[in-house]
Amino acid sequence: MSYVLGIDGGGTKTVCILMDENRQVVGRGEAGASNYQTIGISNTINSINLAIQRAIAERKDLTIIGACLGLAGVSRPRDIEVIKDLLMDLQFYQNLPLNWQLKLDSIVICNDAFIALVGGLGHGTGIVAISGTGSIIFGRNHLGETKRVGGWGHILGDEGSAYQIAVSGMQAALKSYDGREISTSLVAGFQEHLGLANIEDLIEVVYRRGWGVKEIAALAAIVDSAAVNGDAIANRIIEDAVQDLVKATSTVIEAIFHDNEGCEIVTSGGVWQGKANMQGKFAGLIGEKFPQVQVISPKYEPAYGAALLALENIRCC
Amino acid sequence: MSYVLGIDGGGTKTVCILMDENRQVVGRGEAGASNYQTIGISNTINSINLAIQRAIAERKDLTIIGACLGLAGVSRPRDIEVIKDLLMDLQFYQNLPLNWQLKLDSIVICNDAFIALVGGLGHGTGIVAISGTGSIIFGRNHLGETKRVGGWGHILGDEGSAYQIAVSGMQAALKSYDGREISTSLVAGFQEHLGLANIEDLIEVVYRRGWGVKEIAALAAIVDSAAVNGDAIANRIIEDAVQDLVKATSTVIEAIFHDNEGCEIVTSGGVWQGKANMQGKFAGLIGEKFPQVQVISPKYEPAYGAALLALENIRCC
Repeated sequence: MSYVLGIDGGGTKTVCILMDENRQVVGRGEAGASNYQTIGISNTINSINLAIQRAIAERKDLTIIGACLGLAGVSRPRDIEVIKDLLMDLQFYQNLPLNWQLKLDSIVICNDAFIALVGGLGHGTGIVAISGTGSIIFGRNHLGETKRVGGWGHILGDEGSAYQIAVSGMQAALKSYDGREISTSLVAGFQEHLGLANIEDLIEVVYRRGWGVKEIAALAAIVDSAAVNGDAIANRIIEDAVQDLVKATSTVIEAIFHDNEGCEIVTSGGVWQGKANMQGKFAGLIGEKFPQVQVISPKYEPAYGAALLALENIRCC
Repeated sequence: MSYVLGIDGGGTKTVCILMDENRQVVGRGEAGASNYQTIGISNTINSINLAIQRAIAERKDLTIIGACLGLAGVSRPRDIEVIKDLLMDLQFYQNLPLNWQLKLDSIVICNDAFIALVGGLGHGTGIVAISGTGSIIFGRNHLGETKRVGGWGHILGDEGSAYQIAVSGMQAALKSYDGREISTSLVAGFQEHLGLANIEDLIEVVYRRGWGVKEIAALAAIVDSAAVNGDAIANRIIEDAVQDLVKATSTVIEAIFHDNEGCEIVTSGGVWQGKANMQGKFAGLIGEKFPQVQVISPKYEPAYGAALLALENIRCC
């Protein structure tokens, strides 16, 4: 029996799926982050190596005939070269107890949105609407044409993401505090959650504690709760986020799916799990504009999608 | 003759004005940044020391009877303590050739918006609308009551600032590029200015070159130029920035100036110097809402305002 590796290399963790030729998952391992642009190549190799080791567990001499690695921020040719070097390095120098039979063309490197699409849908045609810390909409039609909208990061875009919901919430709380905006429970919400004597101390929290994008994005939960509890400002922020995601998704549909061509949109990322039912609102608005399109929750995780892509790649080679 | 020091301690430079008791400026010196929260206390002392040294030039044994230091981000009591310690340190340990006669109550520490107000208007009653890298609106009525709106920094606010204009411009360019927005000359504008082969490379510039708020804010000039050349998207961004500044300023007027009470608003900061005539648009909208209010350009610089405050403080002590 031969196997493939499907690897989801993210900014928080790395997941590796070991899959046999019949699409059966025979192992799964997790390790730390593997976004090489941020943490460096050597840490990335270590995370991927560890995730593979945990996926194969105690098994020895498995024959690995293909691999697919999905990574955030990988789209340019020079990124792909760097990553292929990484995988070759694993194969030759890391002494994993595997019978490697990888060739350059049995390795697939792609962006994380594509493996989320394939994992989420169980196949490679449709759209994935990712909204977690950041946001991106990625689609692929039956001709293999792809279209990406968003994914420009927390300063340049990420509309509809947890980061943007959190920042909009804090901005609205401060505008309410200084008199530019109507009263909102977000002021008390942020103060209580962060243990602040005064909402002005948000400055201390956001600028002086060395907080990054993830720590800020986690505050989207405050906006989510306030919205569920009927706060008008929080609800407007949630509606705006949904509208941004609908706009981005509509742009993908119109770019690569023909009129009345049915397709599925799979949602992915923590924002869709909020209590404010963003997925339901999103599905409702998409359904009005595109009655032939269905919004679903993910069938499998992105690493599973990566493994499917590794298998598919071997079959067409 | 006795003298006072007026010091404007900013994130880019420190300016010191030496003023006599008749409000005559007899010296002026500049040095590097003095935002102690970012660059630390020892660098701040050095900048202030050097600015004073340059302001007094070759003069010796001037009697200094008062000082006022305006600093960004200073409003909490514990900040004021830190800064008074700084000035006492200068007086006793830095060996400037001055005859210091400062007491704790002849030193005024205040935020940078207040010295910009006093310098800009030449007196202490009215409003300053600051829009440079960041933005803040600060007002003081004839009873000495103050009101601040905005000033929450680049993540939490700074509506109408150069940073926000620049970021809105880049977001619009990327939305246009990925199909969510109509065509805009901003795409070519950013590419040419930054020497990018593709607008996607904005990601490289903004996230991977270690750019800070100031470097990003400087790109507001691209939006300004595009607006002047008739670009619809760029003009919308400029209009939105003006509206944000009008909203914040109106909030200050309504909070501390009575109906039909006349007052002056002085603009301050680089955004008002753009080619797109934001000051004229701002003055037009403010004039419609508050016919009794005048918008003017600064009469003097903030360090001059600090010196006036130092004098005034001595007279009322």
